[in-house]
Amino acid sequence: MKAIILHAHGGPELFRIEDRPKPEIKPGHVLIRVAASSVNPVDFKIRQGLIPIGPELPGILHGDMSGTVEEVGEGVEGFTEGDEVYGCIGGFKDLPGVLADYALADARLLARKPTNLSMIEAAALPLVTITAWNALMDRAQVSEGQRVLVHAAAGGVGHIALQIAKAAGAEVHVTASSEEKIALGRELGADVGINYKEATVEEYVAAHTNGEGYDVVFDTVGTTRLDDSFQAAKIGGTVVSIAARSTHDLTHVHVRALTLHVVFMLLPLARNIGREHHGAILRQATQLVEAGKLRPHLHTEVFPFERVGDAHALLESGGTFGKIVLSNS
Amino acid sequence: MKAIILHAHGGPELFRIEDRPKPEIKPGHVLIRVAASSVNPVDFKIRQGLIPIGPELPGILHGDMSGTVEEVGEGVEGFTEGDEVYGCIGGFKDLPGVLADYALADARLLARKPTNLSMIEAAALPLVTITAWNALMDRAQVSEGQRVLVHAAAGGVGHIALQIAKAAGAEVHVTASSEEKIALGRELGADVGINYKEATVEEYVAAHTNGEGYDVVFDTVGTTRLDDSFQAAKIGGTVVSIAARSTHDLTHVHVRALTLHVVFMLLPLARNIGREHHGAILRQATQLVEAGKLRPHLHTEVFPFERVGDAHALLESGGTFGKIVLSNS
Repeated sequence: MKAIILHAHGGPELFRIEDRPKPEIKPGHVLIRVAASSVNPVDFKIRQGLIPIGPELPGILHGDMSGTVEEVGEGVEGFTEGDEVYGCIGGFKDLPGVLADYALADARLLARKPTNLSMIEAAALPLVTITAWNALMDRAQVSEGQRVLVHAAAGGVGHIALQIAKAAGAEVHVTASSEEKIALGRELGADVGINYKEATVEEYVAAHTNGEGYDVVFDTVGTTRLDDSFQAAKIGGTVVSIAARSTHDLTHVHVRALTLHVVFMLLPLARNIGREHHGAILRQATQLVEAGKLRPHLHTEVFPFERVGDAHALLESGGTFGKIVLSNS
Repeated sequence: MKAIILHAHGGPELFRIEDRPKPEIKPGHVLIRVAASSVNPVDFKIRQGLIPIGPELPGILHGDMSGTVEEVGEGVEGFTEGDEVYGCIGGFKDLPGVLADYALADARLLARKPTNLSMIEAAALPLVTITAWNALMDRAQVSEGQRVLVHAAAGGVGHIALQIAKAAGAEVHVTASSEEKIALGRELGADVGINYKEATVEEYVAAHTNGEGYDVVFDTVGTTRLDDSFQAAKIGGTVVSIAARSTHDLTHVHVRALTLHVVFMLLPLARNIGREHHGAILRQATQLVEAGKLRPHLHTEVFPFERVGDAHALLESGGTFGKIVLSNS
């Protein structure tokens, strides 16, 4: 089968198209004919060698995929040949990635793809949806009537998170760096959009929460945005971060008696613990999508697998938004 | 009435005995004939002017007290004249402290003192018990069978926390800096005592948790002990701190996907929110004490109110352990 192989950590030009054997079915797994994948920041950080959670090289990258079940392994229930599925299934540690014609997936990581999404659209969802669900539903336990602030309204995780918070009944405020990104956040359901380049945390907390602060703040960015999050939370409030590998003054955390949750979505893949929860989240996401409450926002250009390097370069440039999807065509 | 007045922030010699009018009863309050108080680190930090949450000066310090109800205000239920009570009732912001013959207390902050404790013993409990309860029961929600690490086994909060965790059914490990302090922790119920001067975090996590780490770590110390706590928690575990006004590398929090709760016990006093919960905690503490599951460990010398400066100096010296109690005799 065709596979996109990374031979060494480095730039986006290091991917090579090669021929590899089709994976063999295993108990608990399904073999999938891969239709599409999407790019997440973790993918280019793994490619660069910045974070030590990638597969051994030479190896296949990327976790997000949609595709069709071709073969079902022993002991797998709930999937049959021909099912259209999606999930974030590999590209980390000893799990091969999905940039190939076929991928072998632990069935616990999968769900049927929403019927009202194409393969291209579905491939945009798994990693960001599971991340946002971990953060807002599992950890912060967002509930009806809470005031939730989501940073980076147009980001991969941010634009899904704001819809999940909205579906949970929260009043959702979002931040972004441009009117265009804020407009996307509002279109996806955010009640209030804040241009963080034009207001300090004190100013927007005063303007939009009567100075009380937010019940829940979701930091999808890290570094100074995590500091902002500590400052934007109400007394006794909750901050969730997906990017906390850095040093922070916790004074605001102390005087507000906050709870900080850090989400590391890949742990169940890397350590083989709690994988069934990923499948369960995607089954709920499928329901939300089919009910019209959740949808991915895609970058206008879809890249073929062969141009994964260009897709990485585009995401790394930071000059675009909307999930970048790769099609195995 | 006699009152101990602090006129200016500074050393322990700045307290003065003066005559002040007895407080007048108010709705929702009870007037208490004060029997005893205890010293907490927050008291000397307020005296020094290090943390800006003390009463206006000249003013009366200290929150912890035991005493006898002398008069019951309008609308107060559950207390009558002659009741022996305890609580942490003032010494912060606009709430006068308890170093006087009489103190006026918001009835929501009080509970009847345990019948099997003297006034001296009961006065040692409120602040540290509410703090430990906030941390372990309200926030970390310690449950049966969890492995809990409590730092500073012989500290004011630590020695109460380990008993509360034990009463909740946890396996309790404690750290301390000497064999004498560890012996106290073991005597109070700790399953494992660790001399943190003789083992690194990796070493004691390997030795006592098979390298997995703790479900819950309670940092009662702050600074480097909070860093140790991040490192000692298991993947997906919980760290609770009562001392986080400092700067920390959160990498361990990220890679372990931890939850950090910061407890600021005085918020309900300073902001008049959730005060009834303090009374509720103390009612549960009274039950634990009467059931023989919780007891304060006292320093051998009890000081009269007039010698509060000496009591502060002793606690600040750090050379002793056991709660230091002041008697209004």
